[in-house]
Amino acid sequence: MKLTQIADIVHPSDSKILLLVLDGLGGLPLETGGRTELETARTPNLDALLPAGGCGLHDPVAKGITPGSGPGHLGLFGYDPLVYTIGRGVLEALGIEFDLRDGDVAVRGNFCTVDDRGDIEDRRAGRLPTEESAPLCELLDEIQVPGATWFVRPVKEHRFLVVARPDEPLESDIDDTDPEMTGVPPLPVTARSEASRPLAGMFAAWVDEARETLASQPSGNMVLLRGFAQLPDWPRFPDVFGVRAFAAAAYPMYRGVARLVGMEAAAVDDGLEALAAELERRIDDYDFFFLHVKGTDKAGEDGDFDRKVAIIEEVDAVVPRLLAAGPDVVLVTGDHSTPALMRSHSWHPVPFLMHGGPSRRESATSFGETGCQSGSLGRLHSWELMPLAAARAGRFAKYGA
Amino acid sequence: MKLTQIADIVHPSDSKILLLVLDGLGGLPLETGGRTELETARTPNLDALLPAGGCGLHDPVAKGITPGSGPGHLGLFGYDPLVYTIGRGVLEALGIEFDLRDGDVAVRGNFCTVDDRGDIEDRRAGRLPTEESAPLCELLDEIQVPGATWFVRPVKEHRFLVVARPDEPLESDIDDTDPEMTGVPPLPVTARSEASRPLAGMFAAWVDEARETLASQPSGNMVLLRGFAQLPDWPRFPDVFGVRAFAAAAYPMYRGVARLVGMEAAAVDDGLEALAAELERRIDDYDFFFLHVKGTDKAGEDGDFDRKVAIIEEVDAVVPRLLAAGPDVVLVTGDHSTPALMRSHSWHPVPFLMHGGPSRRESATSFGETGCQSGSLGRLHSWELMPLAAARAGRFAKYGA
Repeated sequence: MKLTQIADIVHPSDSKILLLVLDGLGGLPLETGGRTELETARTPNLDALLPAGGCGLHDPVAKGITPGSGPGHLGLFGYDPLVYTIGRGVLEALGIEFDLRDGDVAVRGNFCTVDDRGDIEDRRAGRLPTEESAPLCELLDEIQVPGATWFVRPVKEHRFLVVARPDEPLESDIDDTDPEMTGVPPLPVTARSEASRPLAGMFAAWVDEARETLASQPSGNMVLLRGFAQLPDWPRFPDVFGVRAFAAAAYPMYRGVARLVGMEAAAVDDGLEALAAELERRIDDYDFFFLHVKGTDKAGEDGDFDRKVAIIEEVDAVVPRLLAAGPDVVLVTGDHSTPALMRSHSWHPVPFLMHGGPSRRESATSFGETGCQSGSLGRLHSWELMPLAAARAGRFAKYGA
Repeated sequence: MKLTQIADIVHPSDSKILLLVLDGLGGLPLETGGRTELETARTPNLDALLPAGGCGLHDPVAKGITPGSGPGHLGLFGYDPLVYTIGRGVLEALGIEFDLRDGDVAVRGNFCTVDDRGDIEDRRAGRLPTEESAPLCELLDEIQVPGATWFVRPVKEHRFLVVARPDEPLESDIDDTDPEMTGVPPLPVTARSEASRPLAGMFAAWVDEARETLASQPSGNMVLLRGFAQLPDWPRFPDVFGVRAFAAAAYPMYRGVARLVGMEAAAVDDGLEALAAELERRIDDYDFFFLHVKGTDKAGEDGDFDRKVAIIEEVDAVVPRLLAAGPDVVLVTGDHSTPALMRSHSWHPVPFLMHGGPSRRESATSFGETGCQSGSLGRLHSWELMPLAAARAGRFAKYGA
């Protein structure tokens, strides 16, 4: 169902929806046939939500596809991540919470090292430490090419963000300058369309100045640019679902993706108490709340099965407090799986639990991957969860007469 | 997910994937509530693959749709058969392993019988036996119309293949000449587009010569042409999945479909030992292996439940030898169901089993339709199997940052 079709059936309601994301929630057993992290965790409060609700599995992008954080969260917000794609430059801007505006052109930059002839020796300048790359970014931030206002911000190690804010709207269909190999010079800035030539010319001039600025550096004496992108023109989440939407997350990337679809977002301290306090404080002012827990994903990436289990149990402990704030429908899930076994994101489908609203019989008695596999809510695409939550919250009228 | 989107996330790996297709594997019980062919067969070796893997059901085309061999296999190769359609002429060429080249125009021909006025009496010329139609094809193969090189090859009974290899590239959007009724003359060769007129004119001249050539035949004195088609310009399987791909099949149709998507294919003797030997011989030279077992489908088409059971058990017996060759991920399934009860292909979803790669708990302990229905890998579209196998073989990077 298209987002515009969803927007057509929204009707007014004062119900409240809570989306609690345990980043990388889905897991794997350490031994064949064993229990996952979620199945190992004692989760009495989450389990108690099942009877007046239900559970299931969702696929964030497609079967077999391992999502990044951007696509993972877009799916949970109702946006099919194969349709709603974010340019790399924009993702980089979201990740450092740069105040990207309509018309801004964001690009991911890499410091690289070139030899005397200008051929690339190292595409990442030896993964230049952030404390060395940040001062270089300050130098590049001084460069101003007529026709736009220019910004350069450090990201991490050899990575940085370049933003051009054109004086008038410009197209930005421009090829990467990274040839993705060494022994050759960086590619020239090349427009892929006639209308993108003015901006490509400005970026070419910017690159020339960057080369001169960096010429004396032993490592990181040149730049590569990738993923020229502007903010997408998508249906806004508050318009699609007819909700005032609020996001609370400790990490900028997640606030960034929430803002990208039109939510308001606040930075909070890491930790569950801070998230719960945010919900309690805002419950009357918004209809939809996205609370983001990062710890599960970090523990998974670290390969720390026990810590992931412990964090899931900490989340479980705060559930009564979240419920007490009064949400009508609660959706608990992850944006993807991050099994400790794999120390990385994975393609495995993600368990979810929905509570509130009229429900059929649920056979699962505890929240875990195996129970979710035969759960009463079935196996869904990630972007089908939000419509289901909205329906249970009484926010949709009939489709068709 | 589009094939081009899949190609974007492939990364290098030396893992090996084995796709073992038991043609028409899916079955039905002979009595209400009974066991299917697969459920009746003793399959200890296949069953042993389940714990470190999982099972499920796939729908080859869409719910309720019975696939032919072409769409069935395209789905297993990752190509949605509702998007990637093969023209009838091309399918006919694949079936007899005609060396169809880019730009060739392939058409399915039927011998028919017309009366003195030229009206069709029998659209299939009494299903002319192959031993009578083959010599007529030799006569037709002599016909050469300027502008192309022409080939005619017998297929079976009243069916044959015509191929025009134009001297220069030509469009082939041309209507069938079969009116699909008797008592009327064959339709003229008619172009559906301006650009297809030159080729239509050449085919019209060819049909005139064919009529003269066949005039004295008592049965099969005229031809009908259907499904003008050229080789499609699709993403190649080796490019999409980043694998060197090899197909082994005793029947030309299956080698043909494999070649159509860019695999290399070898003819092998009928029988499982020949397939296993082929895998052993090629294991170092390729990354993906498609082995085709025809017997299950033939037994199903013959309505021979017991023989289908026996062939499944023969396949099971060779599984240890296949595993010993060293594939990292094994996918065992069918291209469609061919229940002996129905003596034909059917629309029923097809059981599949995947082994290798990080896995959740699988509740099924034996490989069969009922266990697959609640299997840990769920219910998939056929074209989702290949991405899942590639993911489990560690061949995909993340989608999005």
